[in-house]
Amino acid sequence: MTDTLAIAGGRVLTPDLDVVEADVLVDADAGEIIEVAPGLAADADETLDATDSLVLPGLVNAHCHAAMTLLRGYADDEPLEAWLREHVWPVEGELTPDDIRVGTELALVELIRSGVTAFADMYFAVDEVAAAVEEAGVRARLGHGVVTVGKDDEAARADLDESFDVAERLDGAADGRVRTAVMPHSLTTVSDELLAETAERARDADVPIHFHLNETTDEVTPVVDEHGVRPSEHAADLGLLTDSTFVAHGVHTDPSEFDVLAERGTSVVHCPASNMKLASGMAPVQAMLDAGVNVALGTDGAASNNDLDLFDELRDAAMIGKLAADDAAAVDAETALRMATEGGADALGFDSGRIEAGANADLAVVDLDAPHLTPEHDLVSHLVYAARGSDVRHTVCDGRVLMRDRDVLAFDEAAVRERAQEHAEALVARAEE
Amino acid sequence: MTDTLAIAGGRVLTPDLDVVEADVLVDADAGEIIEVAPGLAADADETLDATDSLVLPGLVNAHCHAAMTLLRGYADDEPLEAWLREHVWPVEGELTPDDIRVGTELALVELIRSGVTAFADMYFAVDEVAAAVEEAGVRARLGHGVVTVGKDDEAARADLDESFDVAERLDGAADGRVRTAVMPHSLTTVSDELLAETAERARDADVPIHFHLNETTDEVTPVVDEHGVRPSEHAADLGLLTDSTFVAHGVHTDPSEFDVLAERGTSVVHCPASNMKLASGMAPVQAMLDAGVNVALGTDGAASNNDLDLFDELRDAAMIGKLAADDAAAVDAETALRMATEGGADALGFDSGRIEAGANADLAVVDLDAPHLTPEHDLVSHLVYAARGSDVRHTVCDGRVLMRDRDVLAFDEAAVRERAQEHAEALVARAEE
Repeated sequence: MTDTLAIAGGRVLTPDLDVVEADVLVDADAGEIIEVAPGLAADADETLDATDSLVLPGLVNAHCHAAMTLLRGYADDEPLEAWLREHVWPVEGELTPDDIRVGTELALVELIRSGVTAFADMYFAVDEVAAAVEEAGVRARLGHGVVTVGKDDEAARADLDESFDVAERLDGAADGRVRTAVMPHSLTTVSDELLAETAERARDADVPIHFHLNETTDEVTPVVDEHGVRPSEHAADLGLLTDSTFVAHGVHTDPSEFDVLAERGTSVVHCPASNMKLASGMAPVQAMLDAGVNVALGTDGAASNNDLDLFDELRDAAMIGKLAADDAAAVDAETALRMATEGGADALGFDSGRIEAGANADLAVVDLDAPHLTPEHDLVSHLVYAARGSDVRHTVCDGRVLMRDRDVLAFDEAAVRERAQEHAEALVARAEE
Repeated sequence: MTDTLAIAGGRVLTPDLDVVEADVLVDADAGEIIEVAPGLAADADETLDATDSLVLPGLVNAHCHAAMTLLRGYADDEPLEAWLREHVWPVEGELTPDDIRVGTELALVELIRSGVTAFADMYFAVDEVAAAVEEAGVRARLGHGVVTVGKDDEAARADLDESFDVAERLDGAADGRVRTAVMPHSLTTVSDELLAETAERARDADVPIHFHLNETTDEVTPVVDEHGVRPSEHAADLGLLTDSTFVAHGVHTDPSEFDVLAERGTSVVHCPASNMKLASGMAPVQAMLDAGVNVALGTDGAASNNDLDLFDELRDAAMIGKLAADDAAAVDAETALRMATEGGADALGFDSGRIEAGANADLAVVDLDAPHLTPEHDLVSHLVYAARGSDVRHTVCDGRVLMRDRDVLAFDEAAVRERAQEHAEALVARAEE
């Protein structure tokens, strides 16, 4: 007999972004939505109250380095290169797998509390990340970040092998909630030879590829200088761009590249907060969308954000999308919301991001009973421009309740916070020694 | 005998933006801070618990049109001119004083819930705004917005007279918490003749002036075309810029104007969210600060934001301040926090924004016991980049507790929300009739 859950008594955001009064009935075993209609609560084994609330697809954070929560606020207000070389990389060099576990758990608490049900993560010690994801109950596309600059051939190859080993070994973990990708860091931090090999092996192994593309001009100029083509064209020449590839940032992407990305079906993960905080620039999001590129949203790591509340990115995407296009009509609220839901799910290859029968039961329930969400002229506008992660009442992933009335079920929040504080202090002390 | 309040058991943000373990003892009758030191709770008549919390100066929202909460989400994603002419002004034409009272009350609930203790408001039916401020317990600089374009001489003069009448009549209301200003809308919506008269009468009456300056290029080009000087120079020629003048926006302000503003001691209220949402542009905030201009923060009205949570503006100011300067070190966290506290208080002429003996007892207490504020490397960073209005536990203004443990004391929130919904619906129905 099927174990069912009804999210009942509220309103539901449809795939067309309409709002209807309905319950959502979920097959908790299969992790799928059974039906969206009024009056389904009586049929369910368990009920989650959605009175005065809006049920929306769980948000998708499509580019993250979760464990970097340990560095939240550690080194702000620095340009990307100095920030990485003088602050972040020295500390990351001291990270233990245990640190990564703790930092990822802190990130997961934050993600669940702000209604995120799926994320992509590029980091190290991915077994620890996967174990935390299994415990948390969310869905994830995980990978080992490969950097080969400054390494000898053997070490570079070992790094690449680890990325493939992780991708193969962890795919399907946590009852299928963990999927994987190979994750070369960027076109300028991995050699062309190993990038081409990555593409070939990924194709053979049928595993997606994720990397940073055009975050800063420092990732563009060397490629153009050496190869005479824009980075997207070069990535396509290396075989890296397929319809399962998703790239992060795409800030300094020119119109010729939009077509390359659109033709290949490669998704771009827009990280507006990180791009602003590091002064990287404004991605041409509306222009990419108009050219047919799928665009998702990501927080990037907490150290360049500084939180993992994707409601900030919803608002930021609409806000700087308008500035980038010099047009207040660009990246409207519906567009931003689609990026954070179906755009992200499509980028990561998850059947989530739309509330409809047969889709993954990945849901966020937002409390509308709040002064800053009053009056109700337009709930999509409220989600993008006025709501915040703290308005999320319940989070459901794969048919299971992960947060009920602001109480995260998988973790002891106070213990996670205490461990994170201890690990962060010890980590920084080691790095600054 | 003095009635005293101690905010006790937490940490306090000092005027130097250091964090110290201390209590804050307040004279609730005089509305002033008596002392900042450890162990003051025993001396107090009343105590407000600040365990695991940070006491900071109440935030200052230095440019708002509070009653526009009724239009939150009503017409998004439109350019400023179309937004004003086709959507906002037709609805505002239907506003009754009762609508303005209700919209302002909703705004006040939101402001208090996000730790704002002082704001400046330019609107109509200012008696209603002042009455709501009296009830709420916050501090405000209020004025009647004057627009003379499209009016005959008599109507234009009547509008100006109302601004002075309001400024004189309401100054000192609500036990001195209400102060006033005259508020010509902008250089392009009020005639030069009446702007010059405004300056002269304001000087004679010793009342500050507040207006919109350089929000869009449409406010710059006509002035340069007609007068051959930049708008700040023209405003100075008209006598509008004094050290009690504060102007909103300053987006399209060139370096020659920074000096004009700095020499006159005129403050600029940066409204980053509104400037992004209307695609107005990025104000050169770091450059203005470097030139010696005092910069404050404002939300503008909720219709172009869409909330009144000044923590968003703290983050936005740092974020787009870096993009505008093309420098990740620009508008660092301390700079943003100063704008929202002492910068705002200085702009509005209030002795608030700093926690020190003798200053106004205007305080916000932020709960630090939160995953997104963990770990603690830098609390100023957390306030700017990671905290949000919903992290505020208590709000104190003029020595009185306005919100205790998220419970706003002056208003029945549910009733305010219900009235706001009714008034917003009726208003839009009348406008669209």
